Amino acid sequence: MNQETSDIFEGGASLLVVGALLDGRIADISIDEEGTIRAIGEDIWKECRGEAEFIIDASGRVAIPGLVNTHTHAAMTLLRGYADDMHLQEWLADMIWPLEAHLTAEDVYWGTKLACLEMIRTGTIGFNDMYFFMEEAARAVDETGMKAQLCYGFIDLGDADKREAEIQATEKLVRAIRALDNPRIVPAVGPHAPYTVSVEGLEWCASYADAEDIGIHVHLAETEKEVRDCVELTGMRPVALLDWCNCLSSRTLAAHGCWLDEQECTLLGERGVSVSHNPASNMKLAVNRAMPYHWLHRAGVRVTLGTDGCASNNNLDLFEEMKFAALLQKFFWNSDTLLPAGEALAMATSAGAQALGFGPGRIEQGAPADIVLLDRRSLCMTPLHNVTSNIVYACSGHAADTVLCDGRILMFEKTIPGEEEIREKAEEQAEDLVRRSQ
Amino acid sequence: MNQETSDIFEGGASLLVVGALLDGRIADISIDEEGTIRAIGEDIWKECRGEAEFIIDASGRVAIPGLVNTHTHAAMTLLRGYADDMHLQEWLADMIWPLEAHLTAEDVYWGTKLACLEMIRTGTIGFNDMYFFMEEAARAVDETGMKAQLCYGFIDLGDADKREAEIQATEKLVRAIRALDNPRIVPAVGPHAPYTVSVEGLEWCASYADAEDIGIHVHLAETEKEVRDCVELTGMRPVALLDWCNCLSSRTLAAHGCWLDEQECTLLGERGVSVSHNPASNMKLAVNRAMPYHWLHRAGVRVTLGTDGCASNNNLDLFEEMKFAALLQKFFWNSDTLLPAGEALAMATSAGAQALGFGPGRIEQGAPADIVLLDRRSLCMTPLHNVTSNIVYACSGHAADTVLCDGRILMFEKTIPGEEEIREKAEEQAEDLVRRSQ
Repeated sequence: MNQETSDIFEGGASLLVVGALLDGRIADISIDEEGTIRAIGEDIWKECRGEAEFIIDASGRVAIPGLVNTHTHAAMTLLRGYADDMHLQEWLADMIWPLEAHLTAEDVYWGTKLACLEMIRTGTIGFNDMYFFMEEAARAVDETGMKAQLCYGFIDLGDADKREAEIQATEKLVRAIRALDNPRIVPAVGPHAPYTVSVEGLEWCASYADAEDIGIHVHLAETEKEVRDCVELTGMRPVALLDWCNCLSSRTLAAHGCWLDEQECTLLGERGVSVSHNPASNMKLAVNRAMPYHWLHRAGVRVTLGTDGCASNNNLDLFEEMKFAALLQKFFWNSDTLLPAGEALAMATSAGAQALGFGPGRIEQGAPADIVLLDRRSLCMTPLHNVTSNIVYACSGHAADTVLCDGRILMFEKTIPGEEEIREKAEEQAEDLVRRSQ
Repeated sequence: MNQETSDIFEGGASLLVVGALLDGRIADISIDEEGTIRAIGEDIWKECRGEAEFIIDASGRVAIPGLVNTHTHAAMTLLRGYADDMHLQEWLADMIWPLEAHLTAEDVYWGTKLACLEMIRTGTIGFNDMYFFMEEAARAVDETGMKAQLCYGFIDLGDADKREAEIQATEKLVRAIRALDNPRIVPAVGPHAPYTVSVEGLEWCASYADAEDIGIHVHLAETEKEVRDCVELTGMRPVALLDWCNCLSSRTLAAHGCWLDEQECTLLGERGVSVSHNPASNMKLAVNRAMPYHWLHRAGVRVTLGTDGCASNNNLDLFEEMKFAALLQKFFWNSDTLLPAGEALAMATSAGAQALGFGPGRIEQGAPADIVLLDRRSLCMTPLHNVTSNIVYACSGHAADTVLCDGRILMFEKTIPGEEEIREKAEEQAEDLVRRSQ
């Protein structure tokens, strides 16, 4: 470090990352004050050091693109461990929904702060969030320096009055996020799922997303029952229904996709939709089928990775999620070569970043400096026969040492500013939420 | 700490653990110089502090029993990331076996040291190991202070000469371990699997284990093919074959058990056999079926937890393995209430300790002080609605802060003596092994 350590978290400074292990070679990375990677190369520190305000010694560290969590409900960190090991319907009806009925804006603010803390600590630089009181989520993200696509969970259950309220809530959030004027935070429309939103609601979401040029974030084919119910009710499988309502485009990110059939995968590919795989949540809630990665991959669908919310995972560690994805695909589809480590890492980095418009999700000249440095002396990196294998199969997020988002340092050598205060405040908020609901 | 921090790792001292969160209450734990828990209670530190040589401040820490890894090949840490994402037979025949053909005693010593380091760091105090050059593994374990049951992997492939060599290797290891005179390290007989050991070999293993009063460690029903082959060759399923050869008793620990049928589970229960679940390895190698936990549980079988070796996992973190177990059971058997968090934690602690004769695997008066302190301020412990849920579903082994085995401190506030030297030496050894094999 050239300057006082306390300054380094402020952002807006040019940086030089020196001596990182990047794609199998030792390289320096020069980052301008806009947060863009200016140059990458061996020993470029000699020519670049004069321009850099901060120099990060990355010797003994592995540089990878920042991870992107493409499906979560961030503020549900407050519900971590509140209810587990129950039947899905009882879990929702007896535990989760009654607690959520007492949620306040303050809860969502502190829950999202805790989520951001956990994601930064485990190497995630951006995420795709659907929940309530999302203006507060936006405020929390704005303070942390992360990237996010945020949407309000639009649920009309076929009720016209409720639909009107959801439309207003959606429009209000989009205005609020635009007012923040933070290029790292973008709004989206969040039709919850084909089984919770009417055809009219889905059609409004599609036309509003199109008019505002923003993304759509939707749950899709998570359980067998919802697919069966959709066919009974509409005569269409969920993908056909979404397509009929114009909800499928290259701006759409659909989460889960466990029960997609091969034709649906093909159509998602034709429409340019991205699909977020959430293996830990799917296993915990016993959905009984794994997302058909091979069909989606073959159809050219961009497959990304998400943790889902903390009530059904129960953490936000995308390193753990990469391992769950790579192992679940092999196990369920009975193929020991399916979803190799390199593809799992791409799901969590480049695919996620591109799906959300955060950049290429690669460490390359001209890209946003979204970079995670991993401690090469971690036991999970010993020995170092294959860096990518170690990242996906051996490491947890605790291997992350330093995290940059758009060139701003969010964690430096395991230190995140304000961590203990956020942790304590979020814990108090969670306890208070449980008290309020009783 | 009462004394110099450098002394605390030596063992043989009486300890007082003050203010830990234990089973939902704050308690102190008094440990005598033999490593046995003398007393547990609220505020007993006042009466016990005079006797204790060291006082450990455990406020802000959760105390749980030390974890026990009941199936691994410890020295395979050297192969971490060496080969992944391949078809099982090519993986074994083209990558793993050719490398193992060049294994030396020195490799196994350093590989086991690295494994012990990783296990201690992630809260594991003892393990059940099957590999080669096991005298060197015993030496490594002896130096770390962990508990272990060690066996030589006995493989005769029906060849009488090879069988005689395996018998001698087994007897030699048992003598060597007894000569160590370390009560924490016990030998076992290790018939590799029903498909790699002849009936004569299995019978010898059973009678030798009986005569020496030692355990049997065997692979069982990991793949569908081995079960089918066993039936074709012998007319019996693997469990019946092992029973016919007298290999099933309360001293037997069988690993994997993915393809057990219900009758086999019942017989294992009647014989008092323990079964080690290895979910991550089974998923990675795409064995296509999960161990039938519900049948084993119903039959009264003691079900324990193992990571398998690092070539097929690729780490030794039992916290991660608890989550894989609890999620895989729910997912594969399509039951969202199967293997709840409390049972997963018991698999990794009390069941494992009891299966290997390490004690009750519980923190109670008169038990060996095998205790792990977890940092209650970890993000995975925030909020603290349910400690057990957080341990199983949210935490990785990095939540472990301090580890005691038989009252000896193996890790204190994240520090393990000699860690960096072991890591560096093991890494050099792994690189050298690959060079030698080329």
